[in-house]
Amino acid sequence: MTERTVKLHSELAYSVDTPTTILLQVAAMHTSRQFISDELLTVNPSTPVDFLQTGPLGNRASRLILQPGATVIHYSATATLEPKEPYDGNLFELDYTELPADVLPYLNPSRYCESDKLYKFATDLFGNMNRGYDRVSKITDWVYNSLAYTPGSTGPSTTACDVLLQRTGVCRDFAHVSIALCRALGIPARYVSGYAVNLNPPDFHGFFEAFLGGDWILFDATKLAPVSGFVRIGAGRDAADVAFATLIGQATLTSMTVQAIDPNQKIDDARNEVISTA
Amino acid sequence: MTERTVKLHSELAYSVDTPTTILLQVAAMHTSRQFISDELLTVNPSTPVDFLQTGPLGNRASRLILQPGATVIHYSATATLEPKEPYDGNLFELDYTELPADVLPYLNPSRYCESDKLYKFATDLFGNMNRGYDRVSKITDWVYNSLAYTPGSTGPSTTACDVLLQRTGVCRDFAHVSIALCRALGIPARYVSGYAVNLNPPDFHGFFEAFLGGDWILFDATKLAPVSGFVRIGAGRDAADVAFATLIGQATLTSMTVQAIDPNQKIDDARNEVISTA
Amino acid sequence: MTERTVKLHSELAYSVDTPTTILLQVAAMHTSRQFISDELLTVNPSTPVDFLQTGPLGNRASRLILQPGATVIHYSATATLEPKEPYDGNLFELDYTELPADVLPYLNPSRYCESDKLYKFATDLFGNMNRGYDRVSKITDWVYNSLAYTPGSTGPSTTACDVLLQRTGVCRDFAHVSIALCRALGIPARYVSGYAVNLNPPDFHGFFEAFLGGDWILFDATKLAPVSGFVRIGAGRDAADVAFATLIGQATLTSMTVQAIDPNQKIDDARNEVISTA
Amino acid sequence: MTERTVKLHSELAYSVDTPTTILLQVAAMHTSRQFISDELLTVNPSTPVDFLQTGPLGNRASRLILQPGATVIHYSATATLEPKEPYDGNLFELDYTELPADVLPYLNPSRYCESDKLYKFATDLFGNMNRGYDRVSKITDWVYNSLAYTPGSTGPSTTACDVLLQRTGVCRDFAHVSIALCRALGIPARYVSGYAVNLNPPDFHGFFEAFLGGDWILFDATKLAPVSGFVRIGAGRDAADVAFATLIGQATLTSMTVQAIDPNQKIDDARNEVISTA
Repeated sequence: MTERTVKLHSELAYSVDTPTTILLQVAAMHTSRQFISDELLTVNPSTPVDFLQTGPLGNRASRLILQPGATVIHYSATATLEPKEPYDGNLFELDYTELPADVLPYLNPSRYCESDKLYKFATDLFGNMNRGYDRVSKITDWVYNSLAYTPGSTGPSTTACDVLLQRTGVCRDFAHVSIALCRALGIPARYVSGYAVNLNPPDFHGFFEAFLGGDWILFDATKLAPVSGFVRIGAGRDAADVAFATLIGQATLTSMTVQAIDPNQKIDDARNEVISTA
Repeated sequence: MTERTVKLHSELAYSVDTPTTILLQVAAMHTSRQFISDELLTVNPSTPVDFLQTGPLGNRASRLILQPGATVIHYSATATLEPKEPYDGNLFELDYTELPADVLPYLNPSRYCESDKLYKFATDLFGNMNRGYDRVSKITDWVYNSLAYTPGSTGPSTTACDVLLQRTGVCRDFAHVSIALCRALGIPARYVSGYAVNLNPPDFHGFFEAFLGGDWILFDATKLAPVSGFVRIGAGRDAADVAFATLIGQATLTSMTVQAIDPNQKIDDARNEVISTA
Repeated sequence: MTERTVKLHSELAYSVDTPTTILLQVAAMHTSRQFISDELLTVNPSTPVDFLQTGPLGNRASRLILQPGATVIHYSATATLEPKEPYDGNLFELDYTELPADVLPYLNPSRYCESDKLYKFATDLFGNMNRGYDRVSKITDWVYNSLAYTPGSTGPSTTACDVLLQRTGVCRDFAHVSIALCRALGIPARYVSGYAVNLNPPDFHGFFEAFLGGDWILFDATKLAPVSGFVRIGAGRDAADVAFATLIGQATLTSMTVQAIDPNQKIDDARNEVISTA
Repeated sequence: MTERTVKLHSELAYSVDTPTTILLQVAAMHTSRQFISDELLTVNPSTPVDFLQTGPLGNRASRLILQPGATVIHYSATATLEPKEPYDGNLFELDYTELPADVLPYLNPSRYCESDKLYKFATDLFGNMNRGYDRVSKITDWVYNSLAYTPGSTGPSTTACDVLLQRTGVCRDFAHVSIALCRALGIPARYVSGYAVNLNPPDFHGFFEAFLGGDWILFDATKLAPVSGFVRIGAGRDAADVAFATLIGQATLTSMTVQAIDPNQKIDDARNEVISTA
């Protein structure tokens, strides 16, 4: 597969009245298939930053204290993607007895993915399908066709079950429903946050991975951007683990800019590539 | 602190019609404060067992396939406990800026601990208290006093919010409510499964840990057994991570025996010791 | 339409430790299309009974105080049904502007029928169908095909939204889901409790009515018994209004018998008759 | 008790693109203790209005079709209040066996008042108190003290249980929680919508009634206005029954004015009067 380059920029401006701690998860992850270079995190006015790796997957986080007044946090980097294109007709689902130990927690229900409530729902819809990539692809299609993408229709406490009833949501909800359905069927699935080339309007994005053929394979039930242009920030059980910003106290986000650009325009709009960058 | 010895036995008998995979989490964990010896896991009829370490904390799990008919799984071990008795008047809550990275995920809401819905609830009740061990102890007391311990009153999908309304539950529910309240206050908290000396009737037990003074400190909101007699099996975000048995298919649990005995009777019924065995 | 006769019997035996009030709703309703004769309510040992009409529809209720020990309550009656067979190809849905005032409350969400959460769900599934009897019939079919009838799978607090996720329930749940979907589409719908000929095993039954063509038309999403053999006890917004027995205190139901027999066997098993007995 | 006069005005301006039906419930109710005179409902541009009485309590409603463009609906009336002041130290709770039949439905759970989930919660908090007016007053105080009044913190699907967890809400939520707790204790309770003198900022208001001493007694858990200045529009099981405006389709509320003025300033700010106007 040809190498792809994506230029990343994000800028968050906050205003606070009292010193307020923030945990940012906006820096792209280093993986064997995603190389990050020219990385720059600037905070203006200058503020000490504590760089952390959180969670079992080593998500990168930056912890700092916003001082009273305005603070602008700028992140930029170049991501070189050499994703494994794993599809060889054999992206099978592993039997439970074959799953690696570190994958098992991604079968458990989580805050926003109540898979324990959806066994029959998922089985009725997808139980008789051929197992493997095609089944997860059909789950993704079903979510895409069943939900309306409606900014503002959900909030931070909205869960997959809420969305299965109201049938509207945003990217995180599309991912949560897909993850919950996968887990209910015995397919390990996790949430991925990141940047996405050709996402319109530009924003951070939430997508998901299913464990197929021994790899974590990327899916996007919103079909808003090509998976080959995704740059991962972090992964977790659901959006709770990879919030772009966690604020300990009150702050006002006064502006936000997110960009992910492929300078060589190699990334077209094909929505159905099969990609693994984990 | 004096060393304590606890003899552990558990026996689970299952009956299945077709080959059925089971993941058991009944073996005691090795930690620097909990030594496990004379360990024996027998499966009758003899069955291959796949020993795993699951999750970021290295919970021990045994995966096997129950064959049609009856299977009896017996586990026994001796646990020597040398818990750190950490209380020196200084079991403080760490500020968010000081928390170690690996502890941060235990502030996130999880399937059964919806701390994101309880910020005001927790703050109204416990926000003005002195921070630290005393506050978590008061949370534990409040849970103990507010909930009725009623076997059968909750099920596998019951959450902390459900229990805060219905005000009845079992050990896992007492732990989930305590964890959710801690997290809502900014105190990392996690679920611990294990054996408990002097628990009546004998059973596996669910308790919780709060991160205080840099240690994971044990609490039991049910006050059904002394924390100094707890032997940990595993820990996780909530009960979803440490189910004693996860069945992939249908099985009947035909009998279950659990024992945790201190042969020297060193463990008395003091319910308020301050213990860390993590 | 030919007259039908149904012999009704029910017997409830309770045991209480202290005097306990009970409200029974087991007596068949008098309507212009349902004549009740030979009615007998006996309580053994003999107990004063307070006969009430509850709710705006005049549901009949019997209120009595169970004395310590055992009490047997027997009800029997003969119902002569002369249902209007309203179907003439014109069982239309009325526009909101044409609905009679007393029908409007049956568009409101109720405890077990959260229609306010299901506008998009209902519209996606049924919004483009021809309005009228056929649409409600298709809703009924969808509920029948989507839910498993599983005794014990739900409880007294289970709602339509719960059931739409778990996809199992009993007669009251099938009715609640149907009602919620109808209301979400602007079709007034209400819950009906009653006796049902040829129901196996015999029991009280819950079905529902939709307001079509100016009549309340009977439907049964469980398809467990022919609607032409339904004898109504009462109607309400949902099952909360027509519980067979409401107990103010603790009582043990030691036995229960319910019978609805057509001595002339005029009622066959046709499941799709169009009937109104309101 | 001295007569009180309240001048009522409300004005709602809507804009629609296509003909859109609206049901308004803004006209004050006629009761033996609340006389309505000088009543005027004007719609500009002139539109036919269908006057209805909905529900078992005879709530007054106006149904009309908004034509494309802007419509202004103005209501004004004079309400003369001669409330019964029922408190003579004997506003007792009736035993279930003594409750009138038409009151029983107000013990049932409703969409926004899930009393069936709160038996233990309500009993733990209020079970040992003296029954009667004082107990309901203490429930009202508890709700007032436990919830923050926060405009925008809840939405049209928010229920009493939601609010008991999040501990914020608006007038309808304060009423719903109070109603749910009353019903859980066996006290019939219902929702009342209306106008309120001295409410700041002026708006329609939601309060509740408990059935005590054979009367429906007014309470306001928000304590935002004196109950002696309440003018009832309608009552129902919860807010679902008495929405000020029900729209069948899309409309924009472009402005809204509500006024309730006592020209003689007889109504002071005493918040604890005991009043019945049902």
